[in-house]
Amino acid sequence: MKKNSICEQFGLEYPIFAFTHSPDVVISVSNAGGMGVLGASGMTPEEFDSAMKRITNACPEKAFGVDLILPNKYVGMEDGGLSLEALEKHIPKGHRDFVNKLLEEYEVGELEDQEKLASLSAKAGSSVSLSGARALANIAFKYPIKLLVNALGTFPEEFRERAHAQGIKVGALVGQVRHALKQKDAGVDIIIAQGYEAGGHTGDIANTVLVPQVVDAVAPIPVLMAGGVADGRQIAAAMALGAQGVWTGSIWLMTEESETHPVVKKKFAEATSADTLRSRSSTGKHARQLKSSWTDAWEDSKNPDPLPMPLHGMLISDAKLRIEQDALKAKKGATELINYFVGQNVGMLNEERPAAEVLQKLTKEYEETMGKLGSPTTSSIK
Amino acid sequence: MKKNSICEQFGLEYPIFAFTHSPDVVISVSNAGGMGVLGASGMTPEEFDSAMKRITNACPEKAFGVDLILPNKYVGMEDGGLSLEALEKHIPKGHRDFVNKLLEEYEVGELEDQEKLASLSAKAGSSVSLSGARALANIAFKYPIKLLVNALGTFPEEFRERAHAQGIKVGALVGQVRHALKQKDAGVDIIIAQGYEAGGHTGDIANTVLVPQVVDAVAPIPVLMAGGVADGRQIAAAMALGAQGVWTGSIWLMTEESETHPVVKKKFAEATSADTLRSRSSTGKHARQLKSSWTDAWEDSKNPDPLPMPLHGMLISDAKLRIEQDALKAKKGATELINYFVGQNVGMLNEERPAAEVLQKLTKEYEETMGKLGSPTTSSIK
Repeated sequence: MKKNSICEQFGLEYPIFAFTHSPDVVISVSNAGGMGVLGASGMTPEEFDSAMKRITNACPEKAFGVDLILPNKYVGMEDGGLSLEALEKHIPKGHRDFVNKLLEEYEVGELEDQEKLASLSAKAGSSVSLSGARALANIAFKYPIKLLVNALGTFPEEFRERAHAQGIKVGALVGQVRHALKQKDAGVDIIIAQGYEAGGHTGDIANTVLVPQVVDAVAPIPVLMAGGVADGRQIAAAMALGAQGVWTGSIWLMTEESETHPVVKKKFAEATSADTLRSRSSTGKHARQLKSSWTDAWEDSKNPDPLPMPLHGMLISDAKLRIEQDALKAKKGATELINYFVGQNVGMLNEERPAAEVLQKLTKEYEETMGKLGSPTTSSIK
Repeated sequence: MKKNSICEQFGLEYPIFAFTHSPDVVISVSNAGGMGVLGASGMTPEEFDSAMKRITNACPEKAFGVDLILPNKYVGMEDGGLSLEALEKHIPKGHRDFVNKLLEEYEVGELEDQEKLASLSAKAGSSVSLSGARALANIAFKYPIKLLVNALGTFPEEFRERAHAQGIKVGALVGQVRHALKQKDAGVDIIIAQGYEAGGHTGDIANTVLVPQVVDAVAPIPVLMAGGVADGRQIAAAMALGAQGVWTGSIWLMTEESETHPVVKKKFAEATSADTLRSRSSTGKHARQLKSSWTDAWEDSKNPDPLPMPLHGMLISDAKLRIEQDALKAKKGATELINYFVGQNVGMLNEERPAAEVLQKLTKEYEETMGKLGSPTTSSIK
């Protein structure tokens, strides 16, 4: 696979970025020539610091990055983030009752380790706010990261200034041209155009249409295509659309290194591309995820609407842990409810492999695709 | 642009298929080396026969095709299609009242030419049924077409047998792998994978994910990518994803030859890719179209749900004509209501050009894209 300017800029063998919440995937991908990017959101500062230390030690001289979630709008933003106690007061009782009733209906047991509850609630509340993001960024800046990305909004200037002062590039995910232009104005170094097909927080515009328009709008800022990449054909397509690389996520959830819940892995392996939806049921913002009884319940118009960020994550953090715990024990209700963020490419993700092998497979398939496409000068009949 | 097996099969210069309701676009595209495909649905048998005669005379020795709409489910299908009178009885009064109230609210005037009403109602009722499709196919078979396509379902065997007996290839649009497999079993010669981003009746899965899976599922049947094509970059992407060509639609609505309503053309030129939606408001089935006050009204959960095919088309045929008539006079309400089917690529369609020029532009951009991508063997640094 030919090295391009993105590779040179970040010191990569391949312009393949791997978004993941698993430090082990970051380590494998970065050591194999791609760019591992650790999603810090959902981690406590202590957990994140420990993960960064491990990655730094395991990836000497290799490029890796960090992804934060700092939306342009969230409850408490006027104050840069409210305390958990203050946020808890914004969660209506009706919503708590609905979640409890849902778990009861699916016979999901109580948490065995009560500490988990407090821990996850803290994470849910603290990471999606300016102060929460600042705390995580302060940790990230202690390590030799090459890239800091905001998955949902525009970083305040302090983040970019500090990153640039340390030689760290700043990136952002966008789902519309107008958002890309805002990021360009804000001075980001790389833009990730994320299509409708992508897992996680994503917009409504598919990559065939989104990528070329973002490329044209932000030139000469390089663009990565996010969403839909399951094999090398989609990388070739991304390049054809004008991207300089790809931002991948779902594909790593099926790797051996990934922390994906085993029941979720099994569901992913069996799912088709028709088995995902964009739903507010897991974070409060539209995020593509596997359909399950959980998303069915929240999409039902008879039930309460999801809450805005970060309230929804706080509301359901206990429930998610209880479902994960019961699904591990193969309990029926929890197995029906459990789901996770994943793109429409889930239909192409059928087996578990080591992350380095996945990366090699992608580059090999890319080469094969390019070989089949051929060069127009040599293979044209006209 | 290199000729491939699709070109050889159909005698084309370029593997670019142009779906259109305008005979003039078919003529221009087919004469310029692409494949014009006339959408017959919505035409009376007399109108369709006259269009086919004109195309045949204007395109000697050139390839062109016909597209019908024969869904797998529609009201009256047990009987192969009901009479208009019988179908009219299935339209609830509440729906008629809602449409009348909507037009009143937007101050849309009565039809000036009462004949138009009867004519369009007949079209709406008759074309979406086995007997209606059979009547149109009987006309199509009189002309030297190269391709007969079903845009929505699986053709009954009689259609394929007759087509094949005359050396006509049969194609079908699909939005899911399982539909592609059904079409393969039914013996189609070419499959058009239509992504979420496409205009008109389309499914939920984006092309980056849909196309490679359909290609793998139906091999060696050739696959075209439908949806998202606005310039040559998307054609290169389609080829990278494994398609052997592209099926285009929206792009021709902005050509000089197209019959597109002038107010719709203006709206298209100004629209971004965020200005479309999949809605049942225009045919009763999910179809991507421009957002307007019309789609807003039907998407509002307080209002009646759209009716199934072909009832919805019959219900609104009068309204559509009245809106078109008033929009031509620049009346405010009708201008707000008017819309048309179009893909998310509408954000890239900004100017009117002759169809032959559009085709040449696509192929030139495709060549440029392929040139930039380069061949892996010569430009790889590794």
